[in-house]
Amino acid sequence: MSQRRIKPGEVINLYDLNDEFPEGATLALMKTSDMEAIRMVLPKGKEVTEHSVDGEVSVQCLEGKTEFIVDGETKVLSKGDWLYLSRHQPHSLNIIEDTVLLVTILFVGSSSEEE
Amino acid sequence: MSQRRIKPGEVINLYDLNDEFPEGATLALMKTSDMEAIRMVLPKGKEVTEHSVDGEVSVQCLEGKTEFIVDGETKVLSKGDWLYLSRHQPHSLNIIEDTVLLVTILFVGSSSEEE
Repeated sequence: MSQRRIKPGEVINLYDLNDEFPEGATLALMKTSDMEAIRMVLPKGKEVTEHSVDGEVSVQCLEGKTEFIVDGETKVLSKGDWLYLSRHQPHSLNIIEDTVLLVTILFVGSSSEEE
Repeated sequence: MSQRRIKPGEVINLYDLNDEFPEGATLALMKTSDMEAIRMVLPKGKEVTEHSVDGEVSVQCLEGKTEFIVDGETKVLSKGDWLYLSRHQPHSLNIIEDTVLLVTILFVGSSSEEE
């Protein structure tokens, strides 16, 4: 069964999911041609090797604690911390405590940066 | 003095702003040609009349409580609630308690919906 996505105008609580959305799993909340919002659940000890995304990304730490390495600098994200990344900006993660992130990705193929 | 914007990879705490960002004011955290993230501070009793945005919008309630009216339906947003709106989807707000929202707007002029 494919996962249900939320609809425009539908309200979800990021800290207290309803029965249709499993609390402990990474969830794509919504996805359109332009945008994707993912509630990402990352267990303590997990490493996410360096990668980059073809679009701007915003990252918000909802719960937990993680190292976030960007441009060779290590930052520690904890609850309420927020950042954004430029298109193709390489980053990696080391999860220090069980962590939940809200990740919003923009799929913009023709940004003004390319002009 | 124009407000400082945060840079890609820079971390800000949405609940505990640093000295450069005034806690009680609405702040454009970042803005590029594709995306804008705004930490919106709305006092109790304020009404935001119906409007729409030329892009997809995600709204997260960081603090407080507000009525959010979309498609003729009134929802109450409180801490941790999240929703998104389609491009041009009309919405209005009645602020029930002092509220802080994180609003992310996509400026995508040529989405596939137009094709």
